[in-house]
Amino acid sequence: MAKWVYTFGAGQAEGSAEDRDRLGGKGANLAEMCNLGLPVPPGLTIVTAACNSYLEKGRSMPEGLREQVREGITRMEKITGRVFGDTNRPLLLSVRSGARASMPGMMDTVLNLGLNDQSVHALGHDAGDARFAWDSYRRFIQMYGDVVMGVDHEVFEEVLEDEKARLGHEQDTELSAVEWQHVISRYKEAIEEVLGLPFPQDPEVQLWGAIGAVFSSWMNPRAITYRHLHGIPAGWGTAVNVQAMVFGNLGNSSATGVAFTRNPSTGEKELYGEFLVNAQGEDVVAGIRTPQNITEAARIASGSDKPSLEKLMPEAFAEFEKICNALERHYRDMQDIEFTIERGKLWMLQTRSGKRTAKSALKIAVDMAEEGLISKEEAVARIDPASLDQLLHPTIDPHARRDIIGSGLPASPGAATGEIVFSSDEAVQAVKEGRKVILVRVETSPEDIHGMHAAEGILTTRGGMTSHAAVVARGMGTPCVSGAGSIRVDQRNELLIAASVTLRKGDVITIDGSSGQVLKGEIPMLQPELSGDFGKIMQWADASRRMTVRTNAETPADARAARSFGAEGIGLCRTEHMFFEDDRINVMREMILAEDEAGRRTALAKLLPMQRSDFVELFSIMHGLPVTIRLLDPPLHEFLPKTDEEIAEVARVLTIDPAELRQRVDALHEFNPMLGHRGCRLAISYPEIAEMQARAIFEAAVQAAHDTGAAVVPEIMVPLVGLRAELDYVKARIEAVAKEVIGEAGVNIDYLIGTMIELPRAALRADTIAESADFFSFGTNDLTQTTFGISRDDAALFLATYQQKGIIEQDPFVSLDFEGVGELIQIAAERGRRTKNGLKLGICGEHGGDPASIRFCEEAGLDYVSCSPFRVPIARLAAAQATINGREVAEVQALAAS
Amino acid sequence: MAKWVYTFGAGQAEGSAEDRDRLGGKGANLAEMCNLGLPVPPGLTIVTAACNSYLEKGRSMPEGLREQVREGITRMEKITGRVFGDTNRPLLLSVRSGARASMPGMMDTVLNLGLNDQSVHALGHDAGDARFAWDSYRRFIQMYGDVVMGVDHEVFEEVLEDEKARLGHEQDTELSAVEWQHVISRYKEAIEEVLGLPFPQDPEVQLWGAIGAVFSSWMNPRAITYRHLHGIPAGWGTAVNVQAMVFGNLGNSSATGVAFTRNPSTGEKELYGEFLVNAQGEDVVAGIRTPQNITEAARIASGSDKPSLEKLMPEAFAEFEKICNALERHYRDMQDIEFTIERGKLWMLQTRSGKRTAKSALKIAVDMAEEGLISKEEAVARIDPASLDQLLHPTIDPHARRDIIGSGLPASPGAATGEIVFSSDEAVQAVKEGRKVILVRVETSPEDIHGMHAAEGILTTRGGMTSHAAVVARGMGTPCVSGAGSIRVDQRNELLIAASVTLRKGDVITIDGSSGQVLKGEIPMLQPELSGDFGKIMQWADASRRMTVRTNAETPADARAARSFGAEGIGLCRTEHMFFEDDRINVMREMILAEDEAGRRTALAKLLPMQRSDFVELFSIMHGLPVTIRLLDPPLHEFLPKTDEEIAEVARVLTIDPAELRQRVDALHEFNPMLGHRGCRLAISYPEIAEMQARAIFEAAVQAAHDTGAAVVPEIMVPLVGLRAELDYVKARIEAVAKEVIGEAGVNIDYLIGTMIELPRAALRADTIAESADFFSFGTNDLTQTTFGISRDDAALFLATYQQKGIIEQDPFVSLDFEGVGELIQIAAERGRRTKNGLKLGICGEHGGDPASIRFCEEAGLDYVSCSPFRVPIARLAAAQATINGREVAEVQALAAS
Repeated sequence: MAKWVYTFGAGQAEGSAEDRDRLGGKGANLAEMCNLGLPVPPGLTIVTAACNSYLEKGRSMPEGLREQVREGITRMEKITGRVFGDTNRPLLLSVRSGARASMPGMMDTVLNLGLNDQSVHALGHDAGDARFAWDSYRRFIQMYGDVVMGVDHEVFEEVLEDEKARLGHEQDTELSAVEWQHVISRYKEAIEEVLGLPFPQDPEVQLWGAIGAVFSSWMNPRAITYRHLHGIPAGWGTAVNVQAMVFGNLGNSSATGVAFTRNPSTGEKELYGEFLVNAQGEDVVAGIRTPQNITEAARIASGSDKPSLEKLMPEAFAEFEKICNALERHYRDMQDIEFTIERGKLWMLQTRSGKRTAKSALKIAVDMAEEGLISKEEAVARIDPASLDQLLHPTIDPHARRDIIGSGLPASPGAATGEIVFSSDEAVQAVKEGRKVILVRVETSPEDIHGMHAAEGILTTRGGMTSHAAVVARGMGTPCVSGAGSIRVDQRNELLIAASVTLRKGDVITIDGSSGQVLKGEIPMLQPELSGDFGKIMQWADASRRMTVRTNAETPADARAARSFGAEGIGLCRTEHMFFEDDRINVMREMILAEDEAGRRTALAKLLPMQRSDFVELFSIMHGLPVTIRLLDPPLHEFLPKTDEEIAEVARVLTIDPAELRQRVDALHEFNPMLGHRGCRLAISYPEIAEMQARAIFEAAVQAAHDTGAAVVPEIMVPLVGLRAELDYVKARIEAVAKEVIGEAGVNIDYLIGTMIELPRAALRADTIAESADFFSFGTNDLTQTTFGISRDDAALFLATYQQKGIIEQDPFVSLDFEGVGELIQIAAERGRRTKNGLKLGICGEHGGDPASIRFCEEAGLDYVSCSPFRVPIARLAAAQATINGREVAEVQALAAS
Repeated sequence: MAKWVYTFGAGQAEGSAEDRDRLGGKGANLAEMCNLGLPVPPGLTIVTAACNSYLEKGRSMPEGLREQVREGITRMEKITGRVFGDTNRPLLLSVRSGARASMPGMMDTVLNLGLNDQSVHALGHDAGDARFAWDSYRRFIQMYGDVVMGVDHEVFEEVLEDEKARLGHEQDTELSAVEWQHVISRYKEAIEEVLGLPFPQDPEVQLWGAIGAVFSSWMNPRAITYRHLHGIPAGWGTAVNVQAMVFGNLGNSSATGVAFTRNPSTGEKELYGEFLVNAQGEDVVAGIRTPQNITEAARIASGSDKPSLEKLMPEAFAEFEKICNALERHYRDMQDIEFTIERGKLWMLQTRSGKRTAKSALKIAVDMAEEGLISKEEAVARIDPASLDQLLHPTIDPHARRDIIGSGLPASPGAATGEIVFSSDEAVQAVKEGRKVILVRVETSPEDIHGMHAAEGILTTRGGMTSHAAVVARGMGTPCVSGAGSIRVDQRNELLIAASVTLRKGDVITIDGSSGQVLKGEIPMLQPELSGDFGKIMQWADASRRMTVRTNAETPADARAARSFGAEGIGLCRTEHMFFEDDRINVMREMILAEDEAGRRTALAKLLPMQRSDFVELFSIMHGLPVTIRLLDPPLHEFLPKTDEEIAEVARVLTIDPAELRQRVDALHEFNPMLGHRGCRLAISYPEIAEMQARAIFEAAVQAAHDTGAAVVPEIMVPLVGLRAELDYVKARIEAVAKEVIGEAGVNIDYLIGTMIELPRAALRADTIAESADFFSFGTNDLTQTTFGISRDDAALFLATYQQKGIIEQDPFVSLDFEGVGELIQIAAERGRRTKNGLKLGICGEHGGDPASIRFCEEAGLDYVSCSPFRVPIARLAAAQATINGREVAEVQALAAS
């Protein structure tokens, strides 16, 4: 026969903290506290399996449960000297849910169970306080009526408000016993009226009604949605904790409260909590009365005139403080604790690890490690990498009022305020005049780069998490909201049309890149400050990290920022980004529009010095660290003018007849540019382009090595390879140029030639490609695009529908699709290294900065991840956690195997 | 010590026909003929391995070869009674190459080796014909000088032409012995002048010079290119056949000739060949003198006054006829034979299977099977499936003169002549007036369908083998040349601008879709006629075929054509093609431009009856056969107007303001439509579209079953699935509609719901997708597109460069990329069937009609292939061959294993 019930109380518990899966978080911790000899009211926990069985078998109680609960209650009666259902010394119970993962406020709770028209008198006589007894009874009817009998809680609130008005009372505590009796009789009438059923007087009926209600609440809509959002499987079920009631509402020597063993927002090592005299737990949570500070120091700091618990009940406070320290040492983490004091006697009702801000998480982890409570690796493992984002960017003051006029995707974190401008040139102009601006566009294109650098923030109405705007903004650490579908941009009349309001150029708006919200006017901000703790955690993380972390960067500013964030090299330098600045883009256009190779070579000769100087600067900034440079990747027409005005202007600069220019631009038009004449296909059609870039790299390497005194070993990466023959063709061109430059310079240059793996075919044929590649770098943006057959530029629209309809949970362009793209990476890694043992493997898609994807890279055995500068700290931390986690898993497996 | 030499002669040979790999084709067949007791001049064959060793070891003769050749020559001397290098009875030799695969005219040959200033006299005296001796000696110097010493053959031709002019001779045969001696001395001077070296007199030096030259010719540019085009690996090497010379130029009782045992163009069972009296093999090949017919019947038929061999040398002819029949029975295939008659004595110099036209191949295979020479399966295995194309379409008369003005890709076979028109409407109009037209466009779009149906042929300047034009043209069996890059279309002035000429609308051109050529004016044509043999071969093929063959068809005409070609069902009905006709496309636009679901549903309700009637017709035409219908696949904006004129016109029809329409069209614009909002993504965003199509299918199934009395089991295919959740979502909608229609009709309908596998992710996750799919159909066009990351619409440009630069040999959109796309198909087949044993698998990309891809499908265990109607016969034959081949391979493996 299955064991459905685990009892605890009087210093003895059948379960422990290890039994979360069976007893839920609350049950396991109650058992643990009990075993630690802490004052825990006696009770029992019904296991989660009983909930599953109840739900699977058409809501009927599993066999044997009633008997086992009966035995549990008998044990409680022995300990408390009270009897459940008795009319003189009635044992009253609380019935509370408790799932494996914490689901605050999601499922139902019933307190004061067991009260009826007889036992209420006994309770009042026993406590010497009739008011308290009738108050407890009305609370019980209200809760049981709502949670178990399904009578909406507003029915009871109306009755109570009506009575308080009739009696002229402000606070619940002002009602006398007699007045509560009247309220109770009206409650009962309301229930009969709504249900045609009387309020049950039999405690046994009440108990099993409540247990059934808690089981069923596991499947209420709120809980289902919560589980869906946090990835909690329905199969876990919930436990039910049935416990002897202790009363915080038994007069002024009683109280109930919540406390954190450390300050959850600042991380300070101080007892941080609040309590209410003569109240039950629900009142604190409902916030009807303003609670009082637990410690005297906190009272003074908050300037409250209401006495602290420390002052009001010194012994109870002293005992509570001692217990809190013990619990923190025992669990070796900051605890969130619920307690009740009944006539001076302290009872512990729950403990769990407390939720905390990013800043406090850092401080607590570092402090605890330095206090010797946890190891440095544990401290590193405790910080949620994604939360670091908040520390690196200004954020909106949480208390500030928000006038939301639209929302989109949180494309690049941090908040920004400024005047609306609709063009990059205007953005640059405004900044010159010292005004702050937000660049608002349907979509940005590479030509907007100067405007994007100038603006405080970027807002686009289309484009997804990996659209041009999102990728570049994240690279620059500029807040960005993309895909704000509910907002329309009227470019001609320079209007921003939101659902509720239409704004003009120059109006001020604020965008929150962390939440995706678009807000009217200026909102107060919190500036980021990187405490000492941040530095320490990063150091400890670096110590246990296996993979190195590089950055995706092309501009000196990005490279410097990344290096300051601890980047150990450049994993991806997208050379095309270097061609979009003014003086260069027209030379690039000249090259593209040349009729033959000779024409291309003349234009390329002009580009060479520019590219060379870019690389010299990058090599110098990154001296001593590896730099991976990707040859030209985008389709050529991305550099060409589109609108008639642009064509006319460029025709003027290049002295070509506009109609001729229009015709040549149309000739280069492609239906699907992402799958068109780009990447190595360009280098094979026009080898002279790759040769120019190779020469610029090698000449720069010679010069930078001379300037910095440190050897420069450029890693040249060929994009969009799908066939080994493509890599061989381009590699031969690069090697030829290398020989020439080495000959001219009279100096040897070491270099590597590798390839992006960003096409499914390359992953499958990694064995042959590895024969001529020195390294692979997984271009997961393109690999995701081709594995799914979904265009990055067009995905936002239907991916949003997919997420709403539950077809996908995650945007595959944000967090790696393990099952599809992930398998191709594993195949490529395994086959590549079967050909070349120890082949260097890295990743440089946007996933390189995503913690879940980084964990996958660790398991796949990659050597490095590369991401945008502001994601480098996140990647360092996530990579360290992945190594630590990997080692633990290995140890467990070794243990299981031996 | 390796055996480098295999001897043959006097009825005994060390090798046989089985030793092709070692002795090359020629050597193996000489040995075989020898073992059959046929008159073969004695000789030896140096194995192909010796050639590889010679080339790998810096062109030095492998150890032991000289001794073994010496022994071989001694054996020849015993048989012929002549001695190599002797000055009275000199043994003269021929040195000929012979690779494993026939490479006609690719590698070097030396005849009359051994002649020098002394032995020439002995030859003349021995033959009693000084002219013949000096003629042989000048031929030897000419050949050896060119092939071995590298003196260009024009040097000798100039000397000979000069002498013939000086002497006033027309034909070579008019020169006397003395005149040849003078020519020879001038040849020798020329060699000394060019090389500074005398012509070698020592026969040993001549022999090893020639053997070295034949080895080296394996690597001459001609041979390398030939191997590249025909996929012959360089590692095969060439054998060298050293054989005693026999002389066809020893006066009028000598001759040399070539003959086929059956007519290579018509397949008639008649000896078909030609010969020259008093000549050597080179003269026949060089075509200097017009050769004479071998048989009397042929002479009469060709109206030649020159005597046939049958008449001229009756005994030699009778023996030759007997040998030909024996060889055909022995090799059980039509033979291409070289022979020489020396003073009435017949010698066999080579036999191999003869090259033949598609028509004759059919006739020969059928005849030989009916003669019991070969089995029916062998007959089927002998026909090259791709060659059937010629039989199904009109082709240009091979003898007609061609004025080529440009060329492109042979997108759809067959030739067509007509007036140039630049728009579909004009094409339809012209045909109404009884004029034949060729539709000339930069690219066709789905809206050109009516013009494409009307035109005789289609020419596009862009687009590859799987562009819209190519796919639709092949489907309709209309000749098409696509991607004719050298031709420019000036749409405004209605000009076709080719390199050499500019043509106007109305000028007549011819296009050859089998070769890709574009020709000026009208060219004489051969109409296709399907002989009885075609039917027989198809029947025999069907008998041994495992896979069934279906067709890709949407229109009644296509379905009927396919059924007449033997299609066993429809494997792909692209429903979008049904929406492009006039009355429908505007309703479709109404649906796309609707602002909400209600608007879409009203438009869809209008489309329902049209779709239903299409399906009723299709089900009726294909009654008794399966029909697979693919839900709407293309991105919606493909249906929308593009140019300003079109927008204005549509705005008028739909009574919407043009500017509003333009804005809504722009809003639907996608950067990469192939990877955009299409396929099942449409059905998930707008389920009402899929519901309408499902209802049309089920209602049509009920009606067609009623009309034809045969049950209709529609197979509904969901396009572009990458996630199981996508299939489940759409499947649920289809099943719901099925229930409704079954309820309304009161009749049960059996149906299948399956999915296209056309994305890499779907292949990898085939195990989970198979849980809810009744069948898979591999959409290899899209699968190739995403595996390579190459857009079908934009590939033509750089894939041509790739083929020129040897990066790829085949266009992956034409012949399946086994290594990349192929592996994904195998993974999907294996994982799909691991989940669902016996899961039905088919293919419906353009590869479904490509023989090499069909062989791959057989090995991967697919159940059916589906291709355009005119490819169905080719697919039936290729599938049969794949089954036969598969069985043979299995038998060999079983043998090896046991």
